[in-house]
Amino acid sequence: MAEHWFCEQNTPGYSVQWKVVQKLHQETTPFQELMFVELEEWGRTLILDGAVQYTEKDEFIYHEMIAHVPLMSHPRPEKVLIIGGGDGGTLREVLKHPKVASVDMVEIDQRVVETSKVFLPGVASGFDDPRTRLIIDDGINYVHETKQKYDVVLVDSSDPVGPAVQLYSRPFYQDVYRALADDGMLVVQSESPLFYGQLFASIVGNLKDIFPITRVYLATVPTYVSGPWSFTAASKTHDPAHIADDTAIIDGLKYYNKQIHQAAFALPQFILERLG
Amino acid sequence: MAEHWFCEQNTPGYSVQWKVVQKLHQETTPFQELMFVELEEWGRTLILDGAVQYTEKDEFIYHEMIAHVPLMSHPRPEKVLIIGGGDGGTLREVLKHPKVASVDMVEIDQRVVETSKVFLPGVASGFDDPRTRLIIDDGINYVHETKQKYDVVLVDSSDPVGPAVQLYSRPFYQDVYRALADDGMLVVQSESPLFYGQLFASIVGNLKDIFPITRVYLATVPTYVSGPWSFTAASKTHDPAHIADDTAIIDGLKYYNKQIHQAAFALPQFILERLG
Repeated sequence: MAEHWFCEQNTPGYSVQWKVVQKLHQETTPFQELMFVELEEWGRTLILDGAVQYTEKDEFIYHEMIAHVPLMSHPRPEKVLIIGGGDGGTLREVLKHPKVASVDMVEIDQRVVETSKVFLPGVASGFDDPRTRLIIDDGINYVHETKQKYDVVLVDSSDPVGPAVQLYSRPFYQDVYRALADDGMLVVQSESPLFYGQLFASIVGNLKDIFPITRVYLATVPTYVSGPWSFTAASKTHDPAHIADDTAIIDGLKYYNKQIHQAAFALPQFILERLG
Repeated sequence: MAEHWFCEQNTPGYSVQWKVVQKLHQETTPFQELMFVELEEWGRTLILDGAVQYTEKDEFIYHEMIAHVPLMSHPRPEKVLIIGGGDGGTLREVLKHPKVASVDMVEIDQRVVETSKVFLPGVASGFDDPRTRLIIDDGINYVHETKQKYDVVLVDSSDPVGPAVQLYSRPFYQDVYRALADDGMLVVQSESPLFYGQLFASIVGNLKDIFPITRVYLATVPTYVSGPWSFTAASKTHDPAHIADDTAIIDGLKYYNKQIHQAAFALPQFILERLG
Protein backbone atom coordinates (compact mmCIF):
# COMPACT_ATOMS: atom_id res chain seq x y z
CA MET A 1 0.00 0.00 0.00
CA ALA A 2 1.30 3.45 -0.84
CA GLU A 3 2.17 5.79 2.02
CA HIS A 4 -0.50 8.34 2.77
CA TRP A 5 0.33 11.80 4.09
CA PHE A 6 -2.10 14.50 5.21
CA CYS A 7 -1.01 18.00 4.19
CA GLU A 8 -2.14 21.12 6.03
CA GLN A 9 -1.42 24.33 4.17
CA ASN A 10 -0.95 26.90 6.93
CA THR A 11 -0.09 29.84 4.74
CA PRO A 12 0.50 30.21 0.98
CA GLY A 13 4.21 29.51 1.51
CA TYR A 14 4.25 27.02 4.39
CA SER A 15 2.71 23.62 4.92
CA VAL A 16 3.04 20.65 7.23
CA GLN A 17 2.75 16.99 6.30
CA TRP A 18 1.78 14.19 8.67
CA LYS A 19 2.08 10.50 7.94
CA VAL A 20 -1.28 8.79 8.20
CA VAL A 21 -1.52 5.24 9.52
CA GLN A 22 -5.23 4.91 8.96
CA LYS A 23 -8.22 7.01 8.03
CA LEU A 24 -10.90 6.32 10.64
CA HIS A 25 -13.89 8.38 9.55
CA GLN A 26 -14.95 11.11 7.17
CA GLU A 27 -18.26 12.88 6.70
CA THR A 28 -19.73 16.15 5.57
CA THR A 29 -21.83 17.61 8.37
CA PRO A 30 -24.28 20.51 7.87
CA PHE A 31 -21.45 22.79 9.03
CA GLN A 32 -18.10 21.41 7.92
CA GLU A 33 -15.95 18.62 6.57
CA LEU A 34 -15.12 16.32 9.48
CA MET A 35 -12.38 13.68 9.52
CA PHE A 36 -10.65 11.43 12.04
CA VAL A 37 -7.30 9.83 11.26
CA GLU A 38 -4.64 7.94 13.13
CA LEU A 39 -1.30 9.69 12.56
CA GLU A 40 1.94 7.76 12.91
CA GLU A 41 3.52 9.97 15.56
CA TRP A 42 0.61 12.10 16.74
CA GLY A 43 -2.06 9.48 17.40
CA ARG A 44 -5.79 10.01 17.04
CA THR A 45 -6.49 13.25 15.23
CA LEU A 46 -9.55 15.40 14.47
CA ILE A 47 -9.47 17.47 11.28
CA LEU A 48 -12.15 20.08 10.46
CA ASP A 49 -12.26 21.70 7.02
CA GLY A 50 -8.70 20.55 6.38
CA ALA A 51 -7.24 22.03 9.59
CA VAL A 52 -5.89 19.80 12.34
CA GLN A 53 -7.82 20.58 15.55
CA TYR A 54 -6.81 17.86 17.98
CA THR A 55 -3.97 15.36 18.15
CA GLU A 56 -3.61 12.83 20.91
CA LYS A 57 0.08 13.68 21.29
CA ASP A 58 -0.24 17.25 22.48
CA GLU A 59 -3.93 18.13 22.93
CA PHE A 60 -3.22 18.38 26.66
CA ILE A 61 -1.25 21.59 26.14
CA TYR A 62 -4.06 23.55 24.52
CA HIS A 63 -6.83 22.15 26.72
CA GLU A 64 -5.00 22.58 30.01
CA MET A 65 -4.04 26.14 29.16
CA ILE A 66 -7.45 27.32 27.96
CA ALA A 67 -9.13 25.83 31.06
CA HIS A 68 -6.80 26.01 34.05
CA VAL A 69 -5.56 29.58 33.70
CA PRO A 70 -9.04 31.10 34.21
CA LEU A 71 -10.20 28.40 36.63
CA MET A 72 -7.13 28.81 38.85
CA SER A 73 -7.33 32.61 38.84
CA HIS A 74 -11.09 33.04 39.34
CA PRO A 75 -11.75 32.50 43.07
CA ARG A 76 -15.19 30.89 42.64
CA PRO A 77 -15.56 29.40 39.14
CA GLU A 78 -18.83 27.61 39.87
CA LYS A 79 -20.80 28.17 36.71
CA VAL A 80 -18.86 27.67 33.48
CA LEU A 81 -19.88 28.07 29.82
CA ILE A 82 -17.87 26.52 26.98
CA ILE A 83 -18.58 27.73 23.44
CA GLY A 84 -17.38 25.20 20.87
CA GLY A 85 -14.93 22.53 22.02
CA GLY A 86 -17.07 19.72 20.65
CA ASP A 87 -14.16 17.29 20.90
CA GLY A 88 -14.57 17.36 24.68
CA GLY A 89 -10.96 18.16 25.64
CA THR A 90 -11.71 21.52 27.26
CA LEU A 91 -14.74 20.03 29.04
CA ARG A 92 -12.56 17.25 30.49
CA GLU A 93 -10.13 19.81 31.95
CA VAL A 94 -12.86 22.09 33.34
CA LEU A 95 -14.47 19.17 35.16
CA LYS A 96 -11.21 18.48 37.03
CA HIS A 97 -11.91 21.54 39.21
CA PRO A 98 -13.81 20.67 42.36
CA LYS A 99 -15.17 24.22 42.58
CA VAL A 100 -17.00 23.84 39.25
CA ALA A 101 -20.68 23.09 39.92
CA SER A 102 -22.06 23.19 36.38
CA VAL A 103 -20.76 23.36 32.82
CA ASP A 104 -22.97 24.41 29.94
CA MET A 105 -21.36 23.48 26.67
CA VAL A 106 -22.73 25.00 23.46
CA GLU A 107 -21.55 23.29 20.29
CA ILE A 108 -23.01 24.09 16.88
CA ASP A 109 -22.20 20.74 15.30
CA GLN A 110 -23.69 17.72 17.05
CA ARG A 111 -21.71 15.39 14.80
CA VAL A 112 -18.39 16.67 16.24
CA VAL A 113 -19.55 15.61 19.70
CA GLU A 114 -20.99 12.28 18.59
CA THR A 115 -17.96 11.24 16.57
CA SER A 116 -15.40 12.54 19.09
CA LYS A 117 -16.99 10.28 21.70
CA VAL A 118 -16.31 7.36 19.38
CA PHE A 119 -12.91 8.20 17.91
CA LEU A 120 -11.04 10.30 20.49
CA PRO A 121 -9.77 8.45 23.53
CA GLY A 122 -10.26 9.88 26.97
CA VAL A 123 -12.74 12.65 26.32
CA ALA A 124 -16.14 10.98 26.25
CA SER A 125 -16.46 10.76 30.03
CA GLY A 126 -16.90 14.52 30.36
CA PHE A 127 -20.18 14.37 28.47
CA ASP A 128 -21.55 11.86 31.01
CA ASP A 129 -20.59 13.96 34.04
CA PRO A 130 -23.76 15.03 35.90
CA ARG A 131 -22.47 18.63 35.98
CA THR A 132 -22.41 18.82 32.16
CA ARG A 133 -25.32 20.15 30.10
CA LEU A 134 -24.73 19.86 26.35
CA ILE A 135 -26.61 22.37 24.22
CA ILE A 136 -26.53 21.95 20.45
CA ASP A 137 -26.87 25.52 19.20
CA ASP A 138 -24.98 28.33 17.55
CA GLY A 139 -22.86 29.95 20.28
CA ILE A 140 -23.69 33.38 18.84
CA ASN A 141 -27.43 32.81 19.32
CA TYR A 142 -26.98 31.19 22.69
CA VAL A 143 -25.08 34.01 24.37
CA HIS A 144 -27.32 36.59 22.71
CA GLU A 145 -30.43 35.05 24.24
CA THR A 146 -29.32 33.44 27.50
CA LYS A 147 -30.50 34.79 30.86
CA GLN A 148 -27.77 32.86 32.68
CA LYS A 149 -24.86 34.56 34.42
CA TYR A 150 -21.59 32.63 34.21
CA ASP A 151 -18.45 32.94 36.28
CA VAL A 152 -16.17 31.78 33.47
CA VAL A 153 -16.78 31.58 29.71
CA LEU A 154 -14.34 29.74 27.43
CA VAL A 155 -14.46 30.18 23.67
CA ASP A 156 -12.79 27.08 22.24
CA SER A 157 -13.39 27.79 18.60
CA SER A 158 -11.83 26.71 15.35
CA ASP A 159 -10.21 29.29 13.08
CA PRO A 160 -12.33 32.19 11.83
CA VAL A 161 -13.43 30.48 8.65
CA GLY A 162 -16.57 28.39 8.34
CA PRO A 163 -18.95 28.21 11.30
CA ALA A 164 -16.64 30.01 13.76
CA VAL A 165 -16.25 33.34 11.98
CA GLN A 166 -18.69 35.39 14.12
CA LEU A 167 -17.10 34.09 17.34
CA TYR A 168 -14.38 36.68 16.71
CA SER A 169 -16.73 39.67 16.41
CA ARG A 170 -17.40 42.56 18.82
CA PRO A 171 -21.17 41.96 19.10
CA PHE A 172 -20.45 38.42 20.26
CA TYR A 173 -17.95 39.62 22.85
CA GLN A 174 -20.50 42.20 24.07
CA ASP A 175 -23.07 39.44 24.54
CA VAL A 176 -20.50 37.39 26.47
CA TYR A 177 -19.82 40.40 28.70
CA ARG A 178 -23.55 40.58 29.50
CA ALA A 179 -23.72 36.82 30.17
CA LEU A 180 -20.87 37.02 32.72
CA ALA A 181 -21.38 37.60 36.44
CA ASP A 182 -20.09 40.87 37.92
CA ASP A 183 -16.68 39.30 38.50
CA GLY A 184 -16.78 37.01 35.47
CA MET A 185 -13.89 36.12 33.18
CA LEU A 186 -13.71 35.17 29.49
CA VAL A 187 -10.90 33.28 27.78
CA VAL A 188 -10.72 32.90 24.00
CA GLN A 189 -8.16 31.16 21.87
CA SER A 190 -6.69 34.06 19.89
CA GLU A 191 -4.57 32.43 17.17
CA SER A 192 -0.87 32.64 16.35
CA PRO A 193 0.64 36.11 16.90
CA LEU A 194 3.39 35.33 14.37
CA PHE A 195 1.44 33.66 11.57
CA TYR A 196 -1.87 35.49 11.92
CA GLY A 197 -0.70 38.67 13.61
CA GLN A 198 -3.39 40.97 12.27
CA LEU A 199 -6.20 38.64 13.37
CA PHE A 200 -4.55 38.21 16.78
CA ALA A 201 -4.28 41.97 17.28
CA SER A 202 -7.89 42.54 16.22
CA ILE A 203 -9.22 39.95 18.69
CA VAL A 204 -7.27 41.52 21.54
CA GLY A 205 -8.31 45.02 20.43
CA ASN A 206 -12.00 44.08 20.36
CA LEU A 207 -11.81 42.60 23.85
CA LYS A 208 -9.91 45.63 25.21
CA ASP A 209 -12.74 47.92 24.09
CA ILE A 210 -15.26 45.93 26.12
CA PHE A 211 -13.52 44.52 29.21
CA PRO A 212 -11.62 46.48 31.89
CA ILE A 213 -8.88 43.83 32.12
CA THR A 214 -7.45 42.11 29.02
CA ARG A 215 -4.34 39.94 29.20
CA VAL A 216 -2.70 37.79 26.55
CA TYR A 217 -0.96 34.55 27.45
CA LEU A 218 0.97 32.03 25.39
CA ALA A 219 1.54 28.31 25.07
CA THR A 220 3.36 26.39 22.39
CA VAL A 221 1.18 23.70 20.84
CA PRO A 222 3.22 21.81 18.24
CA THR A 223 0.07 20.63 16.47
CA TYR A 224 -0.90 24.19 15.68
CA VAL A 225 1.07 26.16 13.17
CA SER A 226 4.63 26.43 14.41
CA GLY A 227 5.34 29.03 17.04
CA PRO A 228 3.59 30.30 20.12
CA TRP A 229 -0.20 30.07 20.29
CA SER A 230 -2.12 32.81 22.08
CA PHE A 231 -5.05 32.95 24.44
CA THR A 232 -6.67 36.18 25.58
CA ALA A 233 -8.25 36.47 29.01
CA ALA A 234 -10.78 39.31 29.41
CA SER A 235 -12.00 39.92 32.92
CA LYS A 236 -14.34 42.21 34.84
CA THR A 237 -12.42 42.31 38.13
CA HIS A 238 -9.93 39.46 38.71
CA ASP A 239 -6.41 39.50 37.28
CA PRO A 240 -6.09 36.35 35.15
CA ALA A 241 -2.33 36.21 35.83
CA HIS A 242 -2.90 35.99 39.60
CA ILE A 243 -3.71 32.55 41.02
CA ALA A 244 -6.52 32.77 43.58
CA ASP A 245 -5.22 32.33 47.11
CA ASP A 246 -7.06 29.20 48.16
CA THR A 247 -6.69 27.34 44.87
CA ALA A 248 -4.96 23.97 45.13
CA ILE A 249 -3.08 22.59 42.14
CA ILE A 250 -4.80 19.72 40.35
CA ASP A 251 -2.89 16.45 40.29
CA GLY A 252 -1.90 14.68 37.12
CA LEU A 253 -1.62 17.63 34.74
CA LYS A 254 0.96 17.33 31.96
CA TYR A 255 1.57 20.97 31.02
CA TYR A 256 0.08 23.42 33.53
CA ASN A 257 1.72 24.30 36.83
CA LYS A 258 1.80 27.52 38.86
CA GLN A 259 5.12 28.67 37.39
CA ILE A 260 3.78 28.09 33.87
CA HIS A 261 0.61 30.06 34.73
CA GLN A 262 2.62 33.14 35.56
CA ALA A 263 5.28 32.66 32.89
CA ALA A 264 2.64 32.37 30.15
CA PHE A 265 1.79 36.04 30.56
CA ALA A 266 5.36 37.19 29.78
CA LEU A 267 5.23 38.38 26.17
CA PRO A 268 8.16 38.71 23.75
CA GLN A 269 8.98 42.22 22.53
CA PHE A 270 7.58 41.63 19.04
CA ILE A 271 4.19 40.69 20.48
CA LEU A 272 4.16 43.62 22.91
CA GLU A 273 4.92 45.91 19.99
CA ARG A 274 2.17 44.41 17.86
CA LEU A 275 -0.31 45.06 20.64
CA GLY A 276 0.88 48.66 20.89
CA MET B 1 8.20 28.28 -14.09
CA ALA B 2 7.06 25.50 -11.79
CA GLU B 3 6.74 26.24 -8.09
CA HIS B 4 9.65 25.03 -6.01
CA TRP B 5 9.21 23.90 -2.40
CA PHE B 6 11.92 22.89 0.05
CA CYS B 7 10.94 19.95 2.25
CA GLU B 8 12.50 19.32 5.66
CA GLN B 9 11.73 15.89 7.07
CA ASN B 10 11.83 16.42 10.83
CA THR B 11 10.88 12.90 11.87
CA PRO B 12 9.82 9.83 9.86
CA GLY B 13 6.17 10.93 10.18
CA TYR B 14 6.36 14.73 10.07
CA SER B 15 7.73 17.20 7.55
CA VAL B 16 7.52 20.88 6.75
CA GLN B 17 7.44 22.46 3.32
CA TRP B 18 8.54 25.98 2.51
CA LYS B 19 7.92 27.81 -0.75
CA VAL B 20 11.18 28.87 -2.38
CA VAL B 21 11.37 32.12 -4.32
CA GLN B 22 14.95 31.63 -5.43
CA LYS B 23 17.92 29.40 -4.79
CA LEU B 24 20.87 31.67 -4.07
CA HIS B 25 23.80 29.33 -3.55
CA GLN B 26 24.70 25.70 -3.08
CA GLU B 27 28.01 24.00 -2.45
CA THR B 28 29.53 20.95 -0.81
CA THR B 29 32.07 22.06 1.76
CA PRO B 30 34.58 19.67 3.36
CA PHE B 31 32.11 19.32 6.23
CA GLN B 32 28.57 19.55 4.93
CA GLU B 33 26.08 20.41 2.21
CA LEU B 34 25.50 24.16 2.36
CA MET B 35 22.63 26.05 0.72
CA PHE B 36 21.13 29.52 0.79
CA VAL B 37 17.62 30.14 -0.49
CA GLU B 38 15.13 32.97 -0.41
CA LEU B 39 11.85 31.63 1.03
CA GLU B 40 8.57 33.34 0.20
CA GLU B 41 7.49 34.07 3.77
CA TRP B 42 10.69 33.46 5.77
CA GLY B 43 13.24 35.46 3.79
CA ARG B 44 16.92 34.60 3.48
CA THR B 45 17.56 31.09 4.76
CA LEU B 46 20.61 28.95 5.51
CA ILE B 47 20.24 25.18 5.14
CA LEU B 48 22.93 22.72 6.27
CA ASP B 49 22.67 19.03 5.36
CA GLY B 50 18.98 19.50 4.56
CA ALA B 51 18.07 21.13 7.89
CA VAL B 52 16.98 24.76 8.07
CA GLN B 53 19.37 26.61 10.42
CA TYR B 54 18.53 30.25 9.98
CA THR B 55 15.59 32.16 8.54
CA GLU B 56 15.46 35.92 8.34
CA LYS B 57 11.91 35.92 9.74
CA ASP B 58 12.61 34.55 13.19
CA GLU B 59 16.37 34.09 13.67
CA PHE B 60 16.19 36.87 16.26
CA ILE B 61 14.36 34.55 18.68
CA TYR B 62 17.05 31.88 18.80
CA HIS B 63 19.99 34.28 18.72
CA GLU B 64 18.65 36.68 21.34
CA MET B 65 17.81 33.80 23.69
CA ILE B 66 21.10 31.92 23.39
CA ALA B 67 23.08 35.15 23.96
CA HIS B 68 21.19 37.48 26.26
CA VAL B 69 20.14 35.02 28.97
CA PRO B 70 23.75 34.24 29.99
CA LEU B 71 25.05 37.73 29.25
CA MET B 72 22.36 39.37 31.36
CA SER B 73 22.79 36.96 34.27
CA HIS B 74 26.60 36.83 34.40
CA PRO B 75 27.73 39.99 36.23
CA ARG B 76 30.97 40.45 34.24
CA PRO B 77 30.76 38.68 30.86
CA GLU B 78 33.98 40.18 29.51
CA LYS B 79 35.54 37.24 27.70
CA VAL B 80 33.14 35.21 25.55
CA LEU B 81 33.68 32.08 23.44
CA ILE B 82 31.23 31.00 20.75
CA ILE B 83 31.53 27.46 19.39
CA GLY B 84 29.81 27.16 16.01
CA GLY B 85 27.39 29.87 14.99
CA GLY B 86 29.13 30.48 11.68
CA ASP B 87 26.14 32.40 10.36
CA GLY B 88 27.07 35.25 12.71
CA GLY B 89 23.68 35.70 14.43
CA THR B 90 24.86 34.79 17.91
CA LEU B 91 27.99 36.90 17.47
CA ARG B 92 25.86 39.91 16.52
CA GLU B 93 23.81 39.58 19.73
CA VAL B 94 26.85 39.03 21.98
CA LEU B 95 28.50 42.18 20.65
CA LYS B 96 25.49 44.26 21.72
CA HIS B 97 26.66 43.96 25.33
CA PRO B 98 28.92 46.85 26.37
CA LYS B 99 30.51 44.64 29.07
CA VAL B 100 31.86 42.22 26.44
CA ALA B 101 35.54 42.96 25.80
CA SER B 102 36.43 40.08 23.48
CA VAL B 103 34.67 37.31 21.57
CA ASP B 104 36.53 34.27 20.30
CA MET B 105 34.45 32.45 17.73
CA VAL B 106 35.46 28.93 16.73
CA GLU B 107 33.75 27.66 13.60
CA ILE B 108 34.80 24.43 11.91
CA ASP B 109 33.55 25.38 8.45
CA GLN B 110 35.09 28.54 7.01
CA ARG B 111 32.66 28.40 4.08
CA VAL B 112 29.68 28.93 6.41
CA VAL B 113 31.22 32.18 7.59
CA GLU B 114 32.28 33.35 4.15
CA THR B 115 28.95 32.64 2.49
CA SER B 116 26.86 33.93 5.41
CA LYS B 117 28.62 37.28 5.08
CA VAL B 118 27.45 37.38 1.47
CA PHE B 119 23.94 35.94 1.66
CA LEU B 120 22.58 36.72 5.15
CA PRO B 121 21.62 40.32 5.76
CA GLY B 122 22.66 42.05 8.93
CA VAL B 123 25.19 39.61 10.34
CA ALA B 124 28.45 40.40 8.55
CA SER B 125 29.24 43.44 10.70
CA GLY B 126 29.96 41.25 13.75
CA PHE B 127 32.96 39.69 12.02
CA ASP B 128 34.47 43.14 11.47
CA ASP B 129 34.08 44.23 15.10
CA PRO B 130 37.52 44.78 16.67
CA ARG B 131 36.48 42.64 19.67
CA THR B 132 35.94 39.58 17.43
CA ARG B 133 38.61 36.95 16.77
CA LEU B 134 37.50 34.29 14.29
CA ILE B 135 39.22 30.92 14.65
CA ILE B 136 38.63 28.29 11.99
CA ASP B 137 39.00 25.04 13.93
CA ASP B 138 37.08 22.12 15.33
CA GLY B 139 35.48 23.33 18.56
CA ILE B 140 36.32 19.99 20.17
CA ASN B 141 40.05 20.48 19.55
CA TYR B 142 39.95 24.13 20.45
CA VAL B 143 38.46 23.76 23.94
CA HIS B 144 40.61 20.70 24.59
CA GLU B 145 43.79 22.68 23.95
CA THR B 146 43.03 26.26 24.88
CA LYS B 147 44.74 27.92 27.84
CA GLN B 148 42.16 30.72 27.86
CA LYS B 149 39.62 31.16 30.65
CA TYR B 150 36.25 32.43 29.47
CA ASP B 151 33.44 34.05 31.43
CA VAL B 152 30.75 32.77 29.08
CA VAL B 153 30.83 29.96 26.50
CA LEU B 154 27.99 29.54 23.99
CA VAL B 155 27.62 26.35 21.97
CA ASP B 156 25.59 27.32 18.93
CA SER B 157 25.73 24.02 17.11
CA SER B 158 23.70 22.30 14.46
CA ASP B 159 21.93 19.02 15.24
CA PRO B 160 24.05 16.07 16.42
CA VAL B 161 24.60 14.66 12.96
CA GLY B 162 27.55 15.52 10.74
CA PRO B 163 30.30 17.77 12.15
CA ALA B 164 28.45 18.67 15.37
CA VAL B 165 28.02 15.21 16.87
CA GLN B 166 30.83 15.42 19.46
CA LEU B 167 29.64 18.80 20.67
CA TYR B 168 27.02 16.85 22.65
CA SER B 169 29.49 14.57 24.45
CA ARG B 170 30.65 14.54 28.09
CA PRO B 171 34.39 14.93 27.30
CA PHE B 172 33.61 18.11 25.39
CA TYR B 173 31.56 19.49 28.28
CA GLN B 174 34.40 18.63 30.67
CA ASP B 175 36.83 20.58 28.50
CA VAL B 176 34.44 23.53 28.46
CA TYR B 177 34.24 23.38 32.26
CA ARG B 178 38.03 23.65 32.39
CA ALA B 179 38.06 26.54 29.91
CA LEU B 180 35.61 28.54 32.01
CA ALA B 181 36.65 31.02 34.71
CA ASP B 182 35.78 30.18 38.32
CA ASP B 183 32.39 31.84 37.96
CA GLY B 184 31.93 30.94 34.28
CA MET B 185 28.72 29.95 32.54
CA LEU B 186 27.98 27.72 29.53
CA VAL B 187 24.84 27.79 27.38
CA VAL B 188 24.13 25.13 24.77
CA GLN B 189 21.19 24.74 22.44
CA SER B 190 19.69 21.49 23.65
CA GLU B 191 17.13 20.56 20.99
CA SER B 192 13.35 20.04 21.13
CA PRO B 193 12.16 18.35 24.34
CA LEU B 194 9.05 17.08 22.55
CA PHE B 195 10.50 15.86 19.25
CA TYR B 196 13.93 14.74 20.44
CA GLY B 197 13.19 14.10 24.10
CA GLN B 198 15.83 11.45 24.67
CA LEU B 199 18.61 13.57 23.19
CA PHE B 200 17.41 16.58 25.20
CA ALA B 201 17.44 14.60 28.44
CA SER B 202 20.90 13.20 27.75
CA ILE B 203 22.39 16.66 27.10
CA VAL B 204 20.93 17.98 30.35
CA GLY B 205 22.03 14.85 32.22
CA ASN B 206 25.62 15.14 30.95
CA LEU B 207 25.81 18.78 32.01
CA LYS B 208 24.31 18.03 35.44
CA ASP B 209 27.09 15.55 36.13
CA ILE B 210 29.74 18.21 35.53
CA PHE B 211 28.34 21.58 36.60
CA PRO B 212 26.95 22.51 40.03
CA ILE B 213 24.09 24.55 38.51
CA THR B 214 22.17 23.36 35.45
CA ARG B 215 18.98 25.07 34.30
CA VAL B 216 16.86 24.50 31.21
CA TYR B 217 15.06 27.37 29.51
CA LEU B 218 12.72 27.51 26.53
CA ALA B 219 11.88 29.66 23.55
CA THR B 220 9.59 28.94 20.66
CA VAL B 221 11.37 29.30 17.33
CA PRO B 222 8.89 28.63 14.51
CA THR B 223 11.68 27.80 12.08
CA TYR B 224 12.76 24.86 14.20
CA VAL B 225 10.57 21.81 14.41
CA SER B 226 7.24 22.82 15.88
CA GLY B 227 7.06 23.25 19.62
CA PRO B 228 9.31 24.72 22.27
CA TRP B 229 13.06 24.76 21.69
CA SER B 230 15.37 24.27 24.66
CA PHE B 231 18.61 25.81 25.84
CA THR B 232 20.54 24.54 28.82
CA ALA B 233 22.60 26.87 30.98
CA ALA B 234 25.32 25.22 33.07
CA SER B 235 27.04 27.45 35.56
CA LYS B 236 29.76 27.32 38.21
CA THR B 237 28.31 29.94 40.59
CA HIS B 238 25.75 32.35 39.10
CA ASP B 239 22.08 31.44 38.72
CA PRO B 240 21.28 31.84 35.01
CA ALA B 241 17.65 32.69 35.83
CA HIS B 242 18.70 35.70 37.92
CA ILE B 243 19.49 38.91 36.05
CA ALA B 244 22.63 40.56 37.42
CA ASP B 245 21.79 43.65 39.45
CA ASP B 246 23.57 46.31 37.45
CA THR B 247 22.64 44.98 34.02
CA ALA B 248 20.76 47.43 31.82
CA ILE B 249 18.40 46.13 29.15
CA ILE B 250 19.67 46.46 25.59
CA ASP B 251 17.58 48.61 23.29
CA GLY B 252 16.04 47.35 20.10
CA LEU B 253 15.64 43.66 20.91
CA LYS B 254 12.68 41.89 19.31
CA TYR B 255 12.18 38.89 21.62
CA TYR B 256 14.14 39.18 24.87
CA ASN B 257 13.04 41.28 27.82
CA LYS B 258 13.44 40.80 31.57
CA GLN B 259 10.03 39.15 32.00
CA ILE B 260 10.84 36.72 29.18
CA HIS B 261 14.22 35.93 30.80
CA GLN B 262 12.53 34.73 33.96
CA ALA B 263 9.51 33.15 32.29
CA ALA B 264 11.73 31.08 29.99
CA PHE B 265 12.86 29.00 32.98
CA ALA B 266 9.30 27.90 33.85
CA LEU B 267 9.01 24.37 32.48
CA PRO B 268 5.81 22.47 31.65
CA GLN B 269 5.07 19.38 33.72
CA PHE B 270 5.94 16.95 30.90
CA ILE B 271 9.43 18.46 30.61
CA LEU B 272 9.98 18.45 34.38
CA GLU B 273 8.98 14.80 34.43
CA ARG B 274 11.31 13.93 31.56
CA LEU B 275 14.18 15.52 33.48
CA GLY B 276 13.27 13.50 36.59
